[in-house]
Amino acid sequence: MYIGIDLGGTNIAAGVVNEAGYIIYKSSVSTLAKRPIDEIVEDMANLCVDIVDDANCSIADIEAVGVGCPGTVDSKSGTVAYSCNLKMKNTKLRAMLEKKLGKPVNLENDANAAALGEYTVNGDNADSFVLITLGTGVGGGVIIDGKPYRGFNCAGGELGHIIINADGEEQCFCGNKGCWEAYASVTALIRRTKQAMQSDSSSMMHKWVQENGEVSGRTAFDCAKMGDKTAKVVVEQYIRYVSYGLISILNIFQPSKILIGGGISKEGDYLLNPLREYVYAGDYNKYREKTKIEAATLFNDAGIIGAALSAQIY
Amino acid sequence: MYIGIDLGGTNIAAGVVNEAGYIIYKSSVSTLAKRPIDEIVEDMANLCVDIVDDANCSIADIEAVGVGCPGTVDSKSGTVAYSCNLKMKNTKLRAMLEKKLGKPVNLENDANAAALGEYTVNGDNADSFVLITLGTGVGGGVIIDGKPYRGFNCAGGELGHIIINADGEEQCFCGNKGCWEAYASVTALIRRTKQAMQSDSSSMMHKWVQENGEVSGRTAFDCAKMGDKTAKVVVEQYIRYVSYGLISILNIFQPSKILIGGGISKEGDYLLNPLREYVYAGDYNKYREKTKIEAATLFNDAGIIGAALSAQIY
Repeated sequence: MYIGIDLGGTNIAAGVVNEAGYIIYKSSVSTLAKRPIDEIVEDMANLCVDIVDDANCSIADIEAVGVGCPGTVDSKSGTVAYSCNLKMKNTKLRAMLEKKLGKPVNLENDANAAALGEYTVNGDNADSFVLITLGTGVGGGVIIDGKPYRGFNCAGGELGHIIINADGEEQCFCGNKGCWEAYASVTALIRRTKQAMQSDSSSMMHKWVQENGEVSGRTAFDCAKMGDKTAKVVVEQYIRYVSYGLISILNIFQPSKILIGGGISKEGDYLLNPLREYVYAGDYNKYREKTKIEAATLFNDAGIIGAALSAQIY
Repeated sequence: MYIGIDLGGTNIAAGVVNEAGYIIYKSSVSTLAKRPIDEIVEDMANLCVDIVDDANCSIADIEAVGVGCPGTVDSKSGTVAYSCNLKMKNTKLRAMLEKKLGKPVNLENDANAAALGEYTVNGDNADSFVLITLGTGVGGGVIIDGKPYRGFNCAGGELGHIIINADGEEQCFCGNKGCWEAYASVTALIRRTKQAMQSDSSSMMHKWVQENGEVSGRTAFDCAKMGDKTAKVVVEQYIRYVSYGLISILNIFQPSKILIGGGISKEGDYLLNPLREYVYAGDYNKYREKTKIEAATLFNDAGIIGAALSAQIY
């Protein structure tokens, strides 16, 4: 058995995970990210002990521990090279946690860990697999031959920062113009929804916001489903932009399967059917079997499962 | 020893290549691509016999033969699934050539073969490597752990068809708008050069064309070096567009090394220095070692060498 820890800016979530990627027990505590890293590691170790107890097993049953961590993670040296959310720079997180737990620890980038989790449960053992997470940003991970692809410097797989619209107006927080993330994140969808509402005072979306409190990634989708024309335009345009990045990913990787994660993937076929249509139309591959494009299923559990299984692989 | 065949729409080039990727002898014949494929295979086989003779070795010294072929090549089944240039569709090219030569044959996509050739000679045994060829189109190949990355359906690695400018005006021959190829190919450079000349009748580029016959990929570069302002704008804009695709490739792969091939790479540092500057500025990786960006060195030999060595790997 393994422990997977999803170390986020808000919560530390951890689970006892079996070899097949099934979570036996999980729990979480607040990260309180501004604390010294020693204190965070202390809480990570304590959480591991607690969940092993609550899973009715013993620490002796745990083969290894995997940690999914935001930022640039050097798995080889066990170092977090840089993490914006957690104020780590060249932090030897693996050694710190191994000392506390007396178990081998593997560090993995959190997006890679999530991709590995979805791959293990939903990847059909494919030789190539991509997870895209549409959230506050656009994240992703590429699994090749069963392992996360990291790049020579462990900084690869930043799929949200492929440039899809170089001459476009949208500015990405990373400093570039035209990043996929600046068009396909839920943040971008919310921005476009607000713009569309400003231009159409009769849109149903105004009533939706009165009833639901604030504009969210669901506003345009919900109202489009009810027939609101302005909302439909927002949704259609959003799905188009999501498709451009996917077309690039298809034309590069032609993976067996792409899963779309993040809360918006709960829109299901209302998102996926037009998305597949746009992506397959733009796919350079016209003669060979097509990449499957489906919704991810694990949501937040993907990170715990993938982190745990990263410790199994390495 | 191996034979590598670069099967192009115009020429069949073949070479006897040693294990280290050195061409001992090479020659070529015309493809005459409109002929029945049987006749082309006959000429491929005859060329193999001829070059073995001329290399002063015997067919018994040849371990295997590799063929780099344009289009979608299914290396596993030894089939050319589709090739536009050569009118092949589900053609069992491997079996046809093995029957003629009595040697094991491996088929590889031509861009992948070229990437493998450059990787073998200039790749420093890196675990990740990308070749980009800026020519009539934009081609490329990705080498991961010493092997060409193909995708599950062997249609991957179409790097020219990543979308870099979705809302831009340039139409790609593939049907999409915004493909990198529509901005970063020499074809695109020539088109932009002509447009710029139309808007500036005093540009040195008019004189250049009078002296050199027609607009080429060199027109704007040559005149920019001589100080022509309009040519400088064309070159600057072209290099910018080349950089956008490279930024995407870096943010996905973070390969150890990217080599830039095609005739335009002969511009050397005049191309590469500003290109590196733009690419590194847009690289999401700010804290880790940078990908090396250099000019390819093998040009047309890359395809022969890579095809030969693909037969060694598989």
